[in-house]
Amino acid sequence: MGKLKVPKNGNRKDLIVKAGAALFREKGFGAASMRDLAENLGIEAASLYNHIRSKNEILESICFNVANRFNSHLDEIETSNAEPLKKIETLLRFHIQQMVENYEEVIVSDREWKHLDDPYLSNFRIQRRNYRKRLASIIEDGIKKGEIKKIDAPTAVVIMLQAVSGIESWHRSTAKISGSELEDNMIVILVEGMKK
Amino acid sequence: MGKLKVPKNGNRKDLIVKAGAALFREKGFGAASMRDLAENLGIEAASLYNHIRSKNEILESICFNVANRFNSHLDEIETSNAEPLKKIETLLRFHIQQMVENYEEVIVSDREWKHLDDPYLSNFRIQRRNYRKRLASIIEDGIKKGEIKKIDAPTAVVIMLQAVSGIESWHRSTAKISGSELEDNMIVILVEGMKK
Repeated sequence: MGKLKVPKNGNRKDLIVKAGAALFREKGFGAASMRDLAENLGIEAASLYNHIRSKNEILESICFNVANRFNSHLDEIETSNAEPLKKIETLLRFHIQQMVENYEEVIVSDREWKHLDDPYLSNFRIQRRNYRKRLASIIEDGIKKGEIKKIDAPTAVVIMLQAVSGIESWHRSTAKISGSELEDNMIVILVEGMKK
Repeated sequence: MGKLKVPKNGNRKDLIVKAGAALFREKGFGAASMRDLAENLGIEAASLYNHIRSKNEILESICFNVANRFNSHLDEIETSNAEPLKKIETLLRFHIQQMVENYEEVIVSDREWKHLDDPYLSNFRIQRRNYRKRLASIIEDGIKKGEIKKIDAPTAVVIMLQAVSGIESWHRSTAKISGSELEDNMIVILVEGMKK
């Protein structure tokens, strides 16, 4: 056990947050301890606290990093000139890619955000609700334009996001298809059905 | 607190299993206690053990009741003369209806089966795997017949079942659409996209 080794492209806190995401995903936030985390990082528990105040601070970093990433992507899509169905496809591909590439952070933020303390908890809940509403608005826009079938937009959003969260089991699968095949399959199944 | 009241259509064990499903869904199997269960039933904890051996026996009943229901439905569908896509639609409608009507048992069996003890655990795992394989075979059959697009069948199964499990959040939603609207929306989104 020694000092925390810092990779070239990153700082100590990033390293701790990354290891935290892996640990919280594996054990669940409630069951994971700062001692486990220090052990995984190969340092003393006490020296963790030089870099981070608490287990909750790690969860805050994970959740808000993920929220920033998804929110700025959505901002970009909303202001683009693409048709609604194409926007939904692009958003869904981004969700799938995030679940394939950064799945530990994404899964932890999706599953453990209720352990946030206020004001972070209320803030995250509102952001989450708004994000879903904005997706539903794009679908509703597509329905109005006659491009998407008459479906209940909030339900469609829940179905799509829930299906994406199933990628967790893809990571555990032994005989798995590639990430891009997975992405194309999901688009066919989830987007094509909405097309009018 | 008194003796366990038995409804006209049911026996004491059914009543305990039903209350167990509600409790395990709310608290999680690990955190739920036999004391909580007795309290919810309005009886003494000691008298619970006249009807049931352990918390695990309740979980076994829940998981295997659910498995029996889904397996016999699948048997029926497999031997029917419907085309593959229609079979998938019928199976999916059944899954959705079960999640709308018997969601406590279905959610608990889906989420808590890993707490089963052997030999039930291994047995349940095998049944679960076989069930998914049989669904994938129907999709593969539809691909061969040119009725379903060339998709990865096991992935399609995961996406569909995962989407159905999202109905849990529909139960919590305040401004929710009806169960049958939910069903029709899910069929449009999940089945239409596969159609060739």
